[in-house]
Amino acid sequence: MKDKLWKEVIDAQERLQEVAHVTPVFESSSLDQIAKSSVTLKAENLQLSGSFKFRGAYNALSALSDEERKRGVITHSSGNHGQALALAAKLLGQRAFVIMPENAPTVKREAVAGYGAMVVPCAPTQSSREEKTREIIEQTSAAFIDSHDDLHVIAGQATAAVELIEQSGSFDVLLAPVGGGGLIAGTAIAASHLLDSARVIGCEPAAADDAYRSLATGERILDFTPRTIADGLRTPLGKLNFEIMQQLVDSIVLVSEEEIVRAMRFVWERMKLIIEPSSAVAVAPLLSGAIGGNGERIGVILSGGNVDLDRFFAPIEKTSAGKD
Amino acid sequence: MKDKLWKEVIDAQERLQEVAHVTPVFESSSLDQIAKSSVTLKAENLQLSGSFKFRGAYNALSALSDEERKRGVITHSSGNHGQALALAAKLLGQRAFVIMPENAPTVKREAVAGYGAMVVPCAPTQSSREEKTREIIEQTSAAFIDSHDDLHVIAGQATAAVELIEQSGSFDVLLAPVGGGGLIAGTAIAASHLLDSARVIGCEPAAADDAYRSLATGERILDFTPRTIADGLRTPLGKLNFEIMQQLVDSIVLVSEEEIVRAMRFVWERMKLIIEPSSAVAVAPLLSGAIGGNGERIGVILSGGNVDLDRFFAPIEKTSAGKD
Repeated sequence: MKDKLWKEVIDAQERLQEVAHVTPVFESSSLDQIAKSSVTLKAENLQLSGSFKFRGAYNALSALSDEERKRGVITHSSGNHGQALALAAKLLGQRAFVIMPENAPTVKREAVAGYGAMVVPCAPTQSSREEKTREIIEQTSAAFIDSHDDLHVIAGQATAAVELIEQSGSFDVLLAPVGGGGLIAGTAIAASHLLDSARVIGCEPAAADDAYRSLATGERILDFTPRTIADGLRTPLGKLNFEIMQQLVDSIVLVSEEEIVRAMRFVWERMKLIIEPSSAVAVAPLLSGAIGGNGERIGVILSGGNVDLDRFFAPIEKTSAGKD
Repeated sequence: MKDKLWKEVIDAQERLQEVAHVTPVFESSSLDQIAKSSVTLKAENLQLSGSFKFRGAYNALSALSDEERKRGVITHSSGNHGQALALAAKLLGQRAFVIMPENAPTVKREAVAGYGAMVVPCAPTQSSREEKTREIIEQTSAAFIDSHDDLHVIAGQATAAVELIEQSGSFDVLLAPVGGGGLIAGTAIAASHLLDSARVIGCEPAAADDAYRSLATGERILDFTPRTIADGLRTPLGKLNFEIMQQLVDSIVLVSEEEIVRAMRFVWERMKLIIEPSSAVAVAPLLSGAIGGNGERIGVILSGGNVDLDRFFAPIEKTSAGKD
């Protein structure tokens, strides 16, 4: 299986070349000091569409046949995958439908629509979202692109870790957040080919610990109620993702909600980078001491930076408007 | 004068080498589209101490005689210069005193103290701050380092523009915010030596337009009451700064408070970089259409990223703490 997966990653790299941003990497002496490690952060919050999801979506869309391309693509997502798919479709000249719950934040709907995709509202339930998706597929024959349980999506996400290793050399540990499992599976594939003996550790909110429990029991847990601030990580693990993780991921570390917020604030305040809570999940174990401590080289994928900033800006927008 | 100033910049570059961060530059296709220009942003918000001020402070401290070094350094500042001086002194093994108004935000006092400087509180008036400074100088013979009206400070700030030009090649226009005039004077010195015919434009809040009026009338205005969100730009122009600006700065563009907030939000939201309001002052004219429009290459110094994030984080810190 490993060789087949790696071949997909090579293909993804070729498709993404000169399309995706080669995102910069950052280091922080205060983070190194706290974690007693040498930490490199891969800033996928600076990726097109504001998250690593662009890599997977673009790769999946590029891999479609000419016939499929003409019919367009569809997904359901209230988050980063929707934006990523919309932008990828725009760049590839394909039409895209994104099913979004009608209570999704306006800023997210506008981002998807801003990239030219058709936003299709649905009731905020899983069944309504699936029904609406089927309905549009019947009408349009658009190709469904899952946010994570898709070989091309996983291969696309893997290119972030490949790039990190190209930029910064070898690592002892790679950390990435775990939601549906696209990023961590991709990261593990990259590590299994490029790094001799690195440990790949998934980082997950304790309040959404389905991957932790799934790997512990060997049974993929689908029925759970996530209550975490890390909105990107509320998705259940995908089937293919779980299979890859069982083979290639070393362990899952759980972090508390408080640790997530502290890590997010640390990166905003000290490193001046806007990351979303899901990204902070992979920084949190370094600050809490759960990972690090012995000078190892640790690579972290900062997954995205799409945060609603209204709470910060609304008050000063009001004041400044009054002044002019 | 120009050659003497340039010599100081070369010296500053040598002193700062392998000490200051070579901060990255960023581009944004949406900014280019709006500004109808090719814009490069120099991210001094990622500089040590969170702003370009580190360059000037470190250069000034390095230029002291051995005798002066032993006696330590002193400044008054409630902002970035205080932090920059404190960190520079720490790295150079000098003791530092920073006079700060007793109503300065705790986060700023803690930042200065965190770098090991002695924070000396004073009443929040200009006379109290000067009196307290004299008092400490009498006791310690510490060397006073002004935040902007100082040749070594200006030469240090110039290295940001020198670096930007080294990284990104030639520019038609360089933009930097104007407060005391350290950054814009340094930027103008760099441009006058490295760029054949670039225009250097200072960006200033309309609500703190002393540089604009000083250059218009030829008289340095010292008596004004700034009411701008750009807290780093409330300082009156320095004497030396004004002299250099009269010779080397092409013009000043004024921006409204609303434009400042909009530009700040744009950079946070689209570029995922935390910049402070003072930095946004140099981005605002590109969004408003005051500058740009004809495809020119425009370089912008993002001066700093020290913002109080409590409004954003306090509510989620409270919620997340309750959950664990």
